[in-house]
Amino acid sequence: MKFIVETSARHIHLTPEAIETLYGKGAELVVKKMLSQPGQFATANEKIKLVGPKGELMVSVLGPARKANQIELSFTDARALGVVPPIRESGDVEGTPGCKVIGPCGEFETDSGVIVAKRHIHVTPEDAEKYGLHDKQIVSVRVGGPRATVFGETVVRVSPKFQTRMHIDCDENNAAALAPGATGEVIVD
Amino acid sequence: MKFIVETSARHIHLTPEAIETLYGKGAELVVKKMLSQPGQFATANEKIKLVGPKGELMVSVLGPARKANQIELSFTDARALGVVPPIRESGDVEGTPGCKVIGPCGEFETDSGVIVAKRHIHVTPEDAEKYGLHDKQIVSVRVGGPRATVFGETVVRVSPKFQTRMHIDCDENNAAALAPGATGEVIVD
Repeated sequence: MKFIVETSARHIHLTPEAIETLYGKGAELVVKKMLSQPGQFATANEKIKLVGPKGELMVSVLGPARKANQIELSFTDARALGVVPPIRESGDVEGTPGCKVIGPCGEFETDSGVIVAKRHIHVTPEDAEKYGLHDKQIVSVRVGGPRATVFGETVVRVSPKFQTRMHIDCDENNAAALAPGATGEVIVD
Repeated sequence: MKFIVETSARHIHLTPEAIETLYGKGAELVVKKMLSQPGQFATANEKIKLVGPKGELMVSVLGPARKANQIELSFTDARALGVVPPIRESGDVEGTPGCKVIGPCGEFETDSGVIVAKRHIHVTPEDAEKYGLHDKQIVSVRVGGPRATVFGETVVRVSPKFQTRMHIDCDENNAAALAPGATGEVIVD
């Protein structure tokens, strides 16, 4: 089972309320480019500024709008901002740190929402069945190349809404020196 | 065989000539803190500015002086600077990119010397004998924790001048979320 390993640069997911606060009354997210996961997109909206105790970062906004604001950083980003986020799955933001979020038309302070994403593989039900994987399973993924790496503690997420892809962050990409289109394979520990 | 995994932040090694150019005639490197590898030290000298096509970075200077200038960056650093260094072992700088190097008293342009360090383990001859490792051997190293990782393509270097330690860069540290004092172990592929 080989699948493409994609790298997520730092980004923010916003609630409809946050979108109006940052971009103005009636503002909406504008599709710039559809991403590999069906329905998910990079937006053409102006980048958002995050302000933490130690510094600032500009982040892209991903769409569509979500139920909770969520900021996904690498540990490199987090250090620059001055926050210490836990490693979490998307959507699991309870007890995480927050920061100031500044858009062209307004700003707000989040109490929480900053995470470093847990390595994960989006898997279609068909691929899960075919390869004997199940939702929430923890696996290891091997990638090759000059910095060949096995990523342990990788969570499998199965949904008919997915395309089969692994997602890692920029630190993990750099650590493995992955080229665009690089593939990984699940290995048994 | 368990050994401590240490993280090297970006740094520069300088020749005696470069030290005089950057810090002034007769200047020398001043020990701030001895490092784990015998004789190697972090210096108390002012940090050095690197200038590349895309940006600038401040780097610490390690001592003692060497025969060739060498700049060790992570891929995150390299991107900020705007250079594309290869993954190399220390000392193997032929054909690598250079950058501008600016000190408090002078500056110079290097033609080469910028590398991303290849993962490596410094091993004493006693430990090499004990664990069946040999100089230049390529092994994999497993680290545990919330981002458990196996670092492949890790070169073993054996010398009586060493203390047994693995060295990785900041991207690799972040990718594996290693705490200070973390240990690794060689595994057979």
